[in-house]
Amino acid sequence: MTRRGAHAVPDLVARAREGDPAAVARLITLVEDASPVLREVMSALREHTGRAHVLGITGAPGVGKSTSTSALVSAMRRGGRRVGVLAIDPSSPFSGGALLGDRVRMGDHALDRDVYIRSMGARGHLGGLAWSTPQAVRVLDAAGCDVVIVETVGVGQSEVEVAGLADTTLVLLAPGMGDGIQAAKAGILEIGDVYAVNKADREGADRTRRELRTMLTMGERREGAWRPPVVKTVASTGEGIDELLGEVDRHAAWLGESGELARRRTVRARREVEAIALSALRARWERADDGADLDALAGRVAQGDLDPYAAADELLDQG
Amino acid sequence: MTRRGAHAVPDLVARAREGDPAAVARLITLVEDASPVLREVMSALREHTGRAHVLGITGAPGVGKSTSTSALVSAMRRGGRRVGVLAIDPSSPFSGGALLGDRVRMGDHALDRDVYIRSMGARGHLGGLAWSTPQAVRVLDAAGCDVVIVETVGVGQSEVEVAGLADTTLVLLAPGMGDGIQAAKAGILEIGDVYAVNKADREGADRTRRELRTMLTMGERREGAWRPPVVKTVASTGEGIDELLGEVDRHAAWLGESGELARRRTVRARREVEAIALSALRARWERADDGADLDALAGRVAQGDLDPYAAADELLDQG
Repeated sequence: MTRRGAHAVPDLVARAREGDPAAVARLITLVEDASPVLREVMSALREHTGRAHVLGITGAPGVGKSTSTSALVSAMRRGGRRVGVLAIDPSSPFSGGALLGDRVRMGDHALDRDVYIRSMGARGHLGGLAWSTPQAVRVLDAAGCDVVIVETVGVGQSEVEVAGLADTTLVLLAPGMGDGIQAAKAGILEIGDVYAVNKADREGADRTRRELRTMLTMGERREGAWRPPVVKTVASTGEGIDELLGEVDRHAAWLGESGELARRRTVRARREVEAIALSALRARWERADDGADLDALAGRVAQGDLDPYAAADELLDQG
Repeated sequence: MTRRGAHAVPDLVARAREGDPAAVARLITLVEDASPVLREVMSALREHTGRAHVLGITGAPGVGKSTSTSALVSAMRRGGRRVGVLAIDPSSPFSGGALLGDRVRMGDHALDRDVYIRSMGARGHLGGLAWSTPQAVRVLDAAGCDVVIVETVGVGQSEVEVAGLADTTLVLLAPGMGDGIQAAKAGILEIGDVYAVNKADREGADRTRRELRTMLTMGERREGAWRPPVVKTVASTGEGIDELLGEVDRHAAWLGESGELARRRTVRARREVEAIALSALRARWERADDGADLDALAGRVAQGDLDPYAAADELLDQG
């Protein structure tokens, strides 16, 4: 481990493909650090990616995201699948292999070599979620994960953002929090492929499911379009989890048959490529010479010596 | 109005500078439509901008943002100031001069020629809030507004985003919603220059103010740093509004004396210039030839024929 060569990219990639957790961890750290060798990593991973099903899990705080993720992982493991979990907290500057906050519940799987769990922060990240998450997914995909779960810990717009990173988006609600109006306000009616009303042993679960179903059928749907199912679960006891996984798998099959998978992945790749290009440009703009770097130009705009379009032109002129 | 020349940029700018509401409206519409003539508009406005104080007003739904804004506008008008109001709804695709939702309360000022009110949506906008808002502020600034209020109607991250667009950020809370933990969670403790506990005739206002003050003093502050005041208001009756405006003005004076105004405006100009440059690049990337446009490249990445870094290189190569 001390020799430089032991960290060389081809070696790391080969070890990650054999499922070596340390190599997988190292590759994801390279993503988080926006390492210059990422270019070489992604090139080496390319032919080994595209096989994993990417499942996004989101929902408001308190609906039981960690418990549900853990229960789904257990169900997937019973079926012999290898699983990667990326727990994303867009508001957190912390990241790394350590389990954060209620991630300790995932400790059920901590000793399972066929489950890879990783927490990632995004605040202050060069290109944000759109930059780091797809690359971390590529690493887990190439490492042989059958499913990569991307779970958001955050709130607000991150829910919608995460939907764009997954093949299938699972939205969790809980009774009393998930009535129709709230769901509509949070914008979750547009993003879910599968819905679960978790904590379904609590009062109001049937009402929440009924309201949600009504809201979901209100939008008009094209023929052959996917109709998002709503499953009741009690993740803490495992109740309903097999049915939920069944619906997730049914959506995965539909994605392939309908051609929607290719469409979604193209949209995702588009954002990823754009994020990589923009972060390369931003880096160039920081270090431009002759007072034509972004800070110097911004100072002149703030003082009224230059208008913002002329400043943007100067920035673009020097590439 | 039917002759083409009547809409020419120099004429529009001259009329806007005389305070003609129709010319101001037309210029903001050019911003919203991302018109190609904006470059000429911003160049013509440049020497007439930088005078207005930009006040951001934000807070969770239900705290009384519209009522507070309207009351502050009344107080500013009593002092003879000209006021522009941009009501931003980041989640809305709607925009235009029409008053949206509870904006009708601003109807108090509808007939006042020295108050300019405009609602703007941002969803789906090329460069988002960071692109359109500063340019709309420039228009109102050049049109002779002493104060430009940027009020967010939205929720979540938009609050934090709006803080970056203003010289002074006013955060509104209401009793019972604004206890310390909630405030900390929402991230508003870092963004406010002035706080108001509105609906202060309700139970719990003193407790909310006390908790907020405690949380605000917990962070360490440099010597000479601004200490955000917390004012109690009942915007519907006007109670506390003069005191609140006094604190806003005191902050405006501090900004100038401390050099913080120049720093904030440079940060803001930096974002604005970057947003303009990026939207120009995105437009180029859409229409590139030879299958090197972003869609074609994304398709090849999604199919595994190209890695995302190689795709970004191709994109940047044709600049």
